[in-house]
Amino acid sequence: MGSSVGRVRWHLVMSLDGFAAGPDHSLDWMSGLKLRPGVHQEAIDTLGAVLGGRRGYDALARRSPGEASRQPYGGAWRGPVFVLTHHPEDAIPDPGITFLSCGVAEAVEIGLAAAEGKDLELHSQDIARQCVELGLVDEFYVHLAPVMLGSGIRLFDRPGIDPVRWNLVHDGDPAEAVDLRYRPANRA
Amino acid sequence: MGSSVGRVRWHLVMSLDGFAAGPDHSLDWMSGLKLRPGVHQEAIDTLGAVLGGRRGYDALARRSPGEASRQPYGGAWRGPVFVLTHHPEDAIPDPGITFLSCGVAEAVEIGLAAAEGKDLELHSQDIARQCVELGLVDEFYVHLAPVMLGSGIRLFDRPGIDPVRWNLVHDGDPAEAVDLRYRPANRA
Repeated sequence: MGSSVGRVRWHLVMSLDGFAAGPDHSLDWMSGLKLRPGVHQEAIDTLGAVLGGRRGYDALARRSPGEASRQPYGGAWRGPVFVLTHHPEDAIPDPGITFLSCGVAEAVEIGLAAAEGKDLELHSQDIARQCVELGLVDEFYVHLAPVMLGSGIRLFDRPGIDPVRWNLVHDGDPAEAVDLRYRPANRA
Repeated sequence: MGSSVGRVRWHLVMSLDGFAAGPDHSLDWMSGLKLRPGVHQEAIDTLGAVLGGRRGYDALARRSPGEASRQPYGGAWRGPVFVLTHHPEDAIPDPGITFLSCGVAEAVEIGLAAAEGKDLELHSQDIARQCVELGLVDEFYVHLAPVMLGSGIRLFDRPGIDPVRWNLVHDGDPAEAVDLRYRPANRA
């Protein structure tokens, strides 16, 4: 109450071909990936709450039977975690997670309130997509991994929509494309 | 003969969500996109030949009845253009285009020979994917547009493959992810 409202950030590691995860939400392909030093700590310092989706949670719960390993940022951050689901009654319970069964906009409101002025991170691409369409996303922050997956959980799966335009946050023109060159890793 | 062999480069503008084109190979979403000044000229200066695919060619031929407008780089570059197709007999003919009906590896060989030491560009994501799997791509050069499409022609559509790893060409660690921040364009 009275504190400033944090931002809604859509924050993820994405494959070079536009996948947030491999088939069945697999994250194995991230092994060996290097993030810029400090990137994790910056995210943790500004993170107030997390909103995830049911499919991602179920996949994580199957892979990680221990509750601690289901925490965002591998447990390096602690705080309110929400999972939005139509059926909270059949979710694997976890004392660190609050299951919500409401609309996306209301879930975001709840998450922002719990974040107490810090940022709310969206950890579900399906929820993020809905938030984009509702105009609720303040920032899209992506770590583009030098890996192509060929299939998996798409960043933004929404046939029939008009193109959604973003402004790149950098010193130049916000509508400018980012140039990236890659060589096959097996031919170093 | 005797000249050095050029590189095979997979060069494209890609949407932020991993599409090389919209549905039906539409490129309308690229309007307003800004490329780094000089990027076109650099590509043209080093380009020796182009290899495209039949679906992309057909879509282009439908949209651009005039032959000149079907030229790569809007006609600013002139040189050998090949289109690989199983059925050259029913393609809309174009004096500027040679239709090939052979395997991908042979088409690349023909393209490189025609490029006379300059680079061969792959303008079909399907052919590029096959070239990646055959180990024939020397460089992946992408201009990442600040636009999400939601559907379209995927960069690298290949379920069931092992992750394909690339090395980022830059001063730092080649396995490092690229950090990019965006804000919604409609909330400048």
